Amino acid sequence: MRVSPASRLAVILVSPETPENIGLAARGMANAGVADLRFVGVEAPLPAEAYRTAVHAEGILDAARFFPALAEAVADRRLVFASTARARRNVPLLPLAEAVERVAEYPETTPVGLVFGNERTGLSGPDLLLSNFRFHIPQAARQPSYNLGVAVTLTLYAMAGGRRIPRTPAREAPLSLAEQEEAIRRFQALLDSRGFMHDTNRAFIEERVGDIFRRMVLTEKDRNIILALFRTAIGARTGRKDKTEGGELCPTK
Amino acid sequence: MRVSPASRLAVILVSPETPENIGLAARGMANAGVADLRFVGVEAPLPAEAYRTAVHAEGILDAARFFPALAEAVADRRLVFASTARARRNVPLLPLAEAVERVAEYPETTPVGLVFGNERTGLSGPDLLLSNFRFHIPQAARQPSYNLGVAVTLTLYAMAGGRRIPRTPAREAPLSLAEQEEAIRRFQALLDSRGFMHDTNRAFIEERVGDIFRRMVLTEKDRNIILALFRTAIGARTGRKDKTEGGELCPTK
Repeated sequence: MRVSPASRLAVILVSPETPENIGLAARGMANAGVADLRFVGVEAPLPAEAYRTAVHAEGILDAARFFPALAEAVADRRLVFASTARARRNVPLLPLAEAVERVAEYPETTPVGLVFGNERTGLSGPDLLLSNFRFHIPQAARQPSYNLGVAVTLTLYAMAGGRRIPRTPAREAPLSLAEQEEAIRRFQALLDSRGFMHDTNRAFIEERVGDIFRRMVLTEKDRNIILALFRTAIGARTGRKDKTEGGELCPTK
Repeated sequence: MRVSPASRLAVILVSPETPENIGLAARGMANAGVADLRFVGVEAPLPAEAYRTAVHAEGILDAARFFPALAEAVADRRLVFASTARARRNVPLLPLAEAVERVAEYPETTPVGLVFGNERTGLSGPDLLLSNFRFHIPQAARQPSYNLGVAVTLTLYAMAGGRRIPRTPAREAPLSLAEQEEAIRRFQALLDSRGFMHDTNRAFIEERVGDIFRRMVLTEKDRNIILALFRTAIGARTGRKDKTEGGELCPTK
């Protein structure tokens, strides 16, 4: 079965607070031919105001799914992009046009998740990091930000609409995000078990390691090779009892 | 003075009926750094509901101008694009991405007008033709259309935002739209005075001639050359008393 570029996209809204924005997002999905809508931090049923702005997109709201946490909402995705207006230290932020380029590098059957946070507060730090890439929609000023429903529509227009340049996928399909996260936890556990982490650098190393491997968008081959390399390298280096190893991964001023 | 790409854009809303959409359009303008908002068929002051959705864009609503007719609202523009979902016979419809390409062909100081019609009925036939080009935002299905505020935002994002590819303008600045229309009326009057139009083909010829010369986006040089050519050609041909000339411009089945 051939999955169309639009139908491989899922929109995940985390704790949206304005029902009209939910409806506007659904309408933008219908415009782009995207039907898979997921919620985190929202309880069914959706309020009537959401249906008022979901012109010709009521069916998308009816079919929406509700998840208790973001990890479950993106577990079946193989490529996850989180929307954020804020740049964070050490977390690269792609303009939307580059996020579109990244998606185009993968086979067009690759399931993609697009995550959008609360209108005022955006995504939490942990939710933001539960993605392969962070992206933002370039704008004239830091304030005002784009309306949530508009941001979803713009992103889908850029990803699925407009003039499409056909392109041969350059990469293999990645692992599902749940499998990517599991692999990252194994990498971190290996580092931890060999003394690479201690109380003062643990949070920093976990974040950096997570970020590096999420950006790699791991395939099954990648995971197996990296696990093998990790085991070999750590085994060899700890065999030398070099006490400075943990320190090398610490943040530098 | 160097006019930035965003500040050369003006948005003209013709008979919008939902105040929230006006506010959303203004917010999208602020996002893209565009400040020039014009109305046709709307009376000042704008309703309070428009300000509710114009987050951080209240100043754009305050500075908006009101015109009695579209011709006056676009008179100072040199390049006018009208948004429409409907294709009309003989009136080419550009996808948004191609409209962006057309704008990029002109010097970046060229004033551009972007015209959007009523949410349900769109632009009238005459208003639609009072533009150099008609464009639409590609979507998955003919219905639903994009929300008006979202359509403005998407268009401005494509024109002024996103990743800009620097480009050397290939064309001279055109006449103002008022001057272009005046030139077209002179061409039509010349054709009429020499018997090229009669009751059965007048509307058709006026529309085609108008469309052809609007698509040319006339410069001052263009106008002078065309006027000279017209006078010469018409003078020479009518001198030959060829009675079939009007018929050659009639629609053919």
